[in-house]
Amino acid sequence: MQAPLNPESGTDTAAVVGPANRLRIVLVGTQHPGNIGSAARAIKTMGLHRLVLVAPQKFPHAEADAMAAGADDILSHAARFDTLAEAVADCRLVLGCTARSRRVQLRELRPRDAAASAHAEAAAGGEVALVFGRERTGLDNEELQLCHAAVHIPANPDYSSLNLAAAVQVLSYELRLALLGEGDTASAAIAPVNPAAVPHAELEGFFGQLAETLDAIDFHKGRAPESAMRKLRRLFVRTGLDEKEVRLLRGILADAQRMARLAGARNAG
Amino acid sequence: MQAPLNPESGTDTAAVVGPANRLRIVLVGTQHPGNIGSAARAIKTMGLHRLVLVAPQKFPHAEADAMAAGADDILSHAARFDTLAEAVADCRLVLGCTARSRRVQLRELRPRDAAASAHAEAAAGGEVALVFGRERTGLDNEELQLCHAAVHIPANPDYSSLNLAAAVQVLSYELRLALLGEGDTASAAIAPVNPAAVPHAELEGFFGQLAETLDAIDFHKGRAPESAMRKLRRLFVRTGLDEKEVRLLRGILADAQRMARLAGARNAG
Repeated sequence: MQAPLNPESGTDTAAVVGPANRLRIVLVGTQHPGNIGSAARAIKTMGLHRLVLVAPQKFPHAEADAMAAGADDILSHAARFDTLAEAVADCRLVLGCTARSRRVQLRELRPRDAAASAHAEAAAGGEVALVFGRERTGLDNEELQLCHAAVHIPANPDYSSLNLAAAVQVLSYELRLALLGEGDTASAAIAPVNPAAVPHAELEGFFGQLAETLDAIDFHKGRAPESAMRKLRRLFVRTGLDEKEVRLLRGILADAQRMARLAGARNAG
Repeated sequence: MQAPLNPESGTDTAAVVGPANRLRIVLVGTQHPGNIGSAARAIKTMGLHRLVLVAPQKFPHAEADAMAAGADDILSHAARFDTLAEAVADCRLVLGCTARSRRVQLRELRPRDAAASAHAEAAAGGEVALVFGRERTGLDNEELQLCHAAVHIPANPDYSSLNLAAAVQVLSYELRLALLGEGDTASAAIAPVNPAAVPHAELEGFFGQLAETLDAIDFHKGRAPESAMRKLRRLFVRTGLDEKEVRLLRGILADAQRMARLAGARNAG
């Protein structure tokens, strides 16, 4: 994905920033420093900023800085602890992103539901942690017992090894939607095909000229004009034409009418 | 995220696999081969498997293989084209993941709604493409004009540069939720504008005749034809023309061309 995704909009609102201040992403025993950098970039793109590292194997590290791209501020402000217990000591809600586990009985949430819970808790003033385990072995039993629930990304059962930063990206994305209040709405469902479409009434002039033009170029050849016009109306109403498009199409019709006049004059003459 | 996410569950069901076979992830002009590998891993974890590469700068490449981890089968089966037009020629729905753009008027969908649309189309038997542009510069205008809608990940306005593979991961995740029936329920509401729309390639003949007609009726009057044709392409691609509509419109063009010939004959005579 390239450059600014929405350059025109300013910065996030207090409604987003407030709860975001109480959301922390916790990486436990991360093996590859590059993953710490990628995770930092992932959370920053989603408007989060609190990264907590528990006993990282190599940090700080050049690979972490390289992968963080513009998110090095997240790395430099990352809190660091020796144990997960210390990292989440002040949290009201701790969610562990992990494989389904029979080792420890934990309620399992989908990322979307986890994000909704995290947002609700953070909006109510509680500290919330989303915890990600080691690349290979995940979270150990003792760590899982610190979690109020497990979060499970519904991956392909035949190939479920999400990269650590990819998992952080998915959860951070769901957190962002929750922060933006877009958790489960479907606004685009009712969005018009063309937001700049002219009102229906303004199409009538165009349809009138279209009908005249079809006559002029002898399109119907004896057939009833209604059926073709009905299909064309449906087509252009569905499209949602804007002012410029109506002008463009009417310009084309005008030239077709002109040609028909010239041709007619010839036949007459 | 580590090891098997849900070891107990078997493989995906036909309900997931069927539509997934009609969903392709298209990467255009990717600069870093590592991103191609990471994207392959991302789509495989989400149960997708069709990767299409348009003019990659370096591929095949050791970095791609390294980042693909266990997803090298996705890379070895990746289709390859010189242009996006060829890569989506048989698609009924083409969604471009891009920055908000004022350059080209495109309906903008959120990832969740885009996934619902893509799933609805694929479940109905249509070929669907999700298109990702170059790391820095994204998709150019000509490429955007091949898209029925733009997909926008609502990133942090102050730091919106998602890594390419991260963007692929987010969209693939939403596609997976839609395939699993856990996405938005609004899929019907945002199904393609015209479910019976012909594939892209079949529009080309119409666009060709439209361009000829504009010349014949002297619509351009010295102006460069490109701008008008670009607007008209956008309009009709957005509309989603079906077979009957293409025939109807081409019939109208044929009569306009006939009139122009008669008129020309007159001027000549």
